[in-house]
Amino acid sequence: MNSFGELFRLTTFGESHGAAIGGVIDGMPAGMAIDTVAVQQELDRRRPGQSDIVTQRNESDRVEFLSGIYEGTSTGTPIGFIIRNADQRSNDYENMRHTWRPSHADMTYTLKYGHRDHRGGGRASARETAARVVAGALAKQILLKKGITVHAYTSRVGDIAVPLPYSALPLNDINSNPVRCPHAETANKMMELIRKVKGSGDTIGGTIQCVITGTPAGLGEPIFDKLQARLAAAMLSLPAAKGFDYGCGFDGCGELGSASIDELEPSPEGDRPRSVTNHSGGIQGGISNGEDIYFRVAFKPVATLLRPVQTVTDQLQSVTLQARGRHDPCVLPRAVPVVEAMAAMVIADALLLNQTTHLL
Amino acid sequence: MNSFGELFRLTTFGESHGAAIGGVIDGMPAGMAIDTVAVQQELDRRRPGQSDIVTQRNESDRVEFLSGIYEGTSTGTPIGFIIRNADQRSNDYENMRHTWRPSHADMTYTLKYGHRDHRGGGRASARETAARVVAGALAKQILLKKGITVHAYTSRVGDIAVPLPYSALPLNDINSNPVRCPHAETANKMMELIRKVKGSGDTIGGTIQCVITGTPAGLGEPIFDKLQARLAAAMLSLPAAKGFDYGCGFDGCGELGSASIDELEPSPEGDRPRSVTNHSGGIQGGISNGEDIYFRVAFKPVATLLRPVQTVTDQLQSVTLQARGRHDPCVLPRAVPVVEAMAAMVIADALLLNQTTHLL
Amino acid sequence: MNSFGELFRLTTFGESHGAAIGGVIDGMPAGMAIDTVAVQQELDRRRPGQSDIVTQRNESDRVEFLSGIYEGTSTGTPIGFIIRNADQRSNDYENMRHTWRPSHADMTYTLKYGHRDHRGGGRASARETAARVVAGALAKQILLKKGITVHAYTSRVGDIAVPLPYSALPLNDINSNPVRCPHAETANKMMELIRKVKGSGDTIGGTIQCVITGTPAGLGEPIFDKLQARLAAAMLSLPAAKGFDYGCGFDGCGELGSASIDELEPSPEGDRPRSVTNHSGGIQGGISNGEDIYFRVAFKPVATLLRPVQTVTDQLQSVTLQARGRHDPCVLPRAVPVVEAMAAMVIADALLLNQTTHLL
Amino acid sequence: MNSFGELFRLTTFGESHGAAIGGVIDGMPAGMAIDTVAVQQELDRRRPGQSDIVTQRNESDRVEFLSGIYEGTSTGTPIGFIIRNADQRSNDYENMRHTWRPSHADMTYTLKYGHRDHRGGGRASARETAARVVAGALAKQILLKKGITVHAYTSRVGDIAVPLPYSALPLNDINSNPVRCPHAETANKMMELIRKVKGSGDTIGGTIQCVITGTPAGLGEPIFDKLQARLAAAMLSLPAAKGFDYGCGFDGCGELGSASIDELEPSPEGDRPRSVTNHSGGIQGGISNGEDIYFRVAFKPVATLLRPVQTVTDQLQSVTLQARGRHDPCVLPRAVPVVEAMAAMVIADALLLNQTTHLL
Repeated sequence: MNSFGELFRLTTFGESHGAAIGGVIDGMPAGMAIDTVAVQQELDRRRPGQSDIVTQRNESDRVEFLSGIYEGTSTGTPIGFIIRNADQRSNDYENMRHTWRPSHADMTYTLKYGHRDHRGGGRASARETAARVVAGALAKQILLKKGITVHAYTSRVGDIAVPLPYSALPLNDINSNPVRCPHAETANKMMELIRKVKGSGDTIGGTIQCVITGTPAGLGEPIFDKLQARLAAAMLSLPAAKGFDYGCGFDGCGELGSASIDELEPSPEGDRPRSVTNHSGGIQGGISNGEDIYFRVAFKPVATLLRPVQTVTDQLQSVTLQARGRHDPCVLPRAVPVVEAMAAMVIADALLLNQTTHLL
Repeated sequence: MNSFGELFRLTTFGESHGAAIGGVIDGMPAGMAIDTVAVQQELDRRRPGQSDIVTQRNESDRVEFLSGIYEGTSTGTPIGFIIRNADQRSNDYENMRHTWRPSHADMTYTLKYGHRDHRGGGRASARETAARVVAGALAKQILLKKGITVHAYTSRVGDIAVPLPYSALPLNDINSNPVRCPHAETANKMMELIRKVKGSGDTIGGTIQCVITGTPAGLGEPIFDKLQARLAAAMLSLPAAKGFDYGCGFDGCGELGSASIDELEPSPEGDRPRSVTNHSGGIQGGISNGEDIYFRVAFKPVATLLRPVQTVTDQLQSVTLQARGRHDPCVLPRAVPVVEAMAAMVIADALLLNQTTHLL
Repeated sequence: MNSFGELFRLTTFGESHGAAIGGVIDGMPAGMAIDTVAVQQELDRRRPGQSDIVTQRNESDRVEFLSGIYEGTSTGTPIGFIIRNADQRSNDYENMRHTWRPSHADMTYTLKYGHRDHRGGGRASARETAARVVAGALAKQILLKKGITVHAYTSRVGDIAVPLPYSALPLNDINSNPVRCPHAETANKMMELIRKVKGSGDTIGGTIQCVITGTPAGLGEPIFDKLQARLAAAMLSLPAAKGFDYGCGFDGCGELGSASIDELEPSPEGDRPRSVTNHSGGIQGGISNGEDIYFRVAFKPVATLLRPVQTVTDQLQSVTLQARGRHDPCVLPRAVPVVEAMAAMVIADALLLNQTTHLL
Repeated sequence: MNSFGELFRLTTFGESHGAAIGGVIDGMPAGMAIDTVAVQQELDRRRPGQSDIVTQRNESDRVEFLSGIYEGTSTGTPIGFIIRNADQRSNDYENMRHTWRPSHADMTYTLKYGHRDHRGGGRASARETAARVVAGALAKQILLKKGITVHAYTSRVGDIAVPLPYSALPLNDINSNPVRCPHAETANKMMELIRKVKGSGDTIGGTIQCVITGTPAGLGEPIFDKLQARLAAAMLSLPAAKGFDYGCGFDGCGELGSASIDELEPSPEGDRPRSVTNHSGGIQGGISNGEDIYFRVAFKPVATLLRPVQTVTDQLQSVTLQARGRHDPCVLPRAVPVVEAMAAMVIADALLLNQTTHLL
């Protein structure tokens, strides 16, 4: 289904090569000053064509708000918005009308729905994530009011990984390079690798790290809507995402309990309990504990190669497919703002839900 | 919140040391023969006290069905059930009434709800997963009708991992040893490690692998309810779960696209397309493609150590806590049926949702 | 489906002649003192056998709470509860196993689900409303904290109607007679009519009026969850309910706008706007305005007559059916607490939802 | 909240005087030929300015579909659409920026959200119902496939009521006069009354009758989503609606059970049970029985009078307000297609939900 969230709720629509994509944000708290410029800036971070290591599709991606904001302030009514599609070149996809691209959604959409919009992936295109960025940018404005920040960055491309933990990195430098890695030396190596891979008509995957700071204790709704469950669902709903872990994650599962327990101490100010370490990743029992929340998302390499691949037609004939179109050699740089958007929506929703824990 | 699923929907209740735990299953298809013995067998797989490598709490865990089944058949009305709590020894927890156990939900529940049931973890106890097993066992009966199987097994404990892929393992042997690993030699090493860890008052984590076979193409509801997003939410809602990945997962994200693409060929029978490889893990664009679905779940070591740990009271006084109570040195063996239960519920729900893709 | 409400959410289960009925209340605010005696008192108001004008089925209807309440206080976790069925006399229904009772749910359940529990209406029995009363009694405890009261009463039976508006009635006297009408003279006439109808093996319908006082302005969630839409859904989900109207209702629709508009004036204290009249029924644009909310619910006569009726078997043979079993000659007296329960749940849910209108 | 339906789900946005209104339809079955001309025709039935008895606001109300339809067929992906606002004359409302119109949503929106879009009712304007008509028109195309028809008509204006039951009326003639009443003589009287009321600056209410034919048995989801509960919620979510009843309704509640029971007989073809009468209104136990479904909706007179009314400002000063703007003297004629739209959505959703009653 095409809605996400309980109280801060995004519903999206739109295909890669239709007239427009867009959405409706229901549950934006009333009375908030809305910074539409900041929304456009987030969209620009996701926009194609912004550097040589991403797709060259040329979309200005201008968001038009249609409702829910009056005289610069949220009214409490739903915020509708659209982003017109412009540079479509649908003809690039004409040869795929009856041929399924391997490892894409082409075949599964056909098998499920009976037919499909083959142009540029249709609904399955990562283009739909632009609508998420709009909603995420509004969610960030909620978080800003509460002193919560969300930073994602490319932590690994292929076998090149940032050698330091997030706490040792200048998170404000994430946007200082096209690959969105705050460790300059690693960023350069990543970009070099991506250019090399691109040159050979290939693609490459990696991981994005995300850090949420300033979260109050109490967010998350056990049992089934634990904060990590919501974050995991958010991240695995992204195109090309293959995994999610948080806190000590997969690596920590090889450890002993005595090595991974977070002992407690009073905070220096003596006003709250504090975790001495943070293997828990800021969440215990599905509820935030006030420490940093951090998690990783794995992204597979893009399945569109600029080299021949073996596949079948919808008549089950074997064919060789040579992709055309414009594609990302590596989705990570453009996925960074999308990861942040989804994380921000999850936290904004959890904030609102937590306002109902007690009768006020 | 305490409900899971859209059409096949479980709502649960109950604390570790209350009168009972239980739940309501809404959306069980009408007219199905219900095998209540099979449900109890699944519960017995999760039951405490079944071997020396799990907690010695003594619970018979008998499920009592209260509605929704008449003359052995599902009526289409909600299935209510309870499991009485028996061996509680709440006094074991009296010293924790005002002391927070590190890396547990104790502190976060207090900070969120204002107070808590401190006895044995209260609602945050893994005991609530028994209700999931009941619903999962009924979901499995739906899957059985469609020829779908779900097998989970312990694939890693500490640094001991099964050396073979799932496809090379005798999945029917999973229950032949207490650790629930179908590779006998590895199982023995795992159990040896768990006993050693237990002897030192420590705990150990690991990963569970799950494989779903026989799934038809078409399951999953883009965009936000992609099949992998539902599976990830299901798994990260489990106590102690720290990560989820599927198909090529985290490891595959270091690969080139050319190495991880799944080319297509006609099936030998010529009646459907088939993936030559299955890096995709049986899901493309959020929709099953008919190949095996497989994923991994990471579980951290249990946070209850039988050795002193530093913590604080709810008055923010530093104290040393020496846990009592009976605890699992490693949750993996008992988590195996729970992972299967959650996976079965996700697939059952997806099957029903997919029945609405077209107007019949 | 078997859940009601968004944030204060009841899920129920149970058939008339199964082991038990019950439910789960999710979203009860944490930290509230829970008066379980008051819950039982509400159940006793709905209980069969309490007077000669209702069914003589003998059910003690003792509610057992299983979770979510600890040391007398709500914990914020789900409240599970059951009510065992006792006096079932299922044999009374054996002759209806293959015969459909006219104007009951017998036929429609069979046509929908393929088979049914024919004993006493199964899931379609009004017995399920006992679970609603439990949840409603807890909702009333939320309302009590906010100074909100909910009073329902029998306002009409057959052609005997209370001649005064609710504002002229002693609402605290509702329980002073078995028919639950606060106008003593009318109550006597109603009871006389019910006894007469009962004597002839017939049944009779009527209307219930409900008044909610003390509601703050701001409750209700436009567009689709307007407060009156939620109330209407709540009331029409009740067995035998055939209509709902609020404020000026059906009668006011014949009026001119100039006769039915509610002009505004400052309240005597000058601290809020006040409606000079209240044709609106306390709701404008789907949102409460702080005035009394009042509405009516129409209930048809019970369809079980103690006289022969023409019907068909599930093999489509015409037969004459002579009902046995114990039945209400008029549902109104016992429906009064159920109407209150549903209204209380709607308002409690709206209170919690309204806590999310602004970012706190 | 701004979404309606479970599987066939409409989410709407937009204010009377914003840039556009619109919505997203999620769950449209895949593979259906979509008749966009028919959608526009339904919109034209609701359009302002179509006759002298409705508002003279001049809106072309052209719907633009943005997604979900490809080559004339539904793809199974969400259908986004917008309708631009044109003839706004917002200045007409400038004098209401700080003054609350009596019996409108002005005050309640302010009290709930803290501020409001005062222009033409903002979100509370009946203009939002245009989005419902779009979704309803698509729902009707689902119903058409199943042989289901939905007809609403103006059955009463003020004290002028159609003297015949629906079954005696030519339902295909509903659109043959501006008031949308299929009884020509009554229609003329109604129009005469509306013109007279309009001339005096007043307004008038009435009732709409709706009939749904061809519904299969089995629609509706007990307990809380009984078909009548969904219909009631749908109708009471409409601006100005004050009541809903179905089948024998409020009037039938004065009857004896023996007079209102629907005895059963085999159908003439002997292939299904048939109700001899239809006091039940086609629904029993919340589930359709295959007979006609019919219900009434009460609409109050429009609260905007073209004469002075007493009210207060948002500073609680008493003032006399003289409305400007263009308004309907009677909403009934334009509400007819909206009632049909909501009914069609409820039935379409119920059809899809009923496809999940059994495992297929």
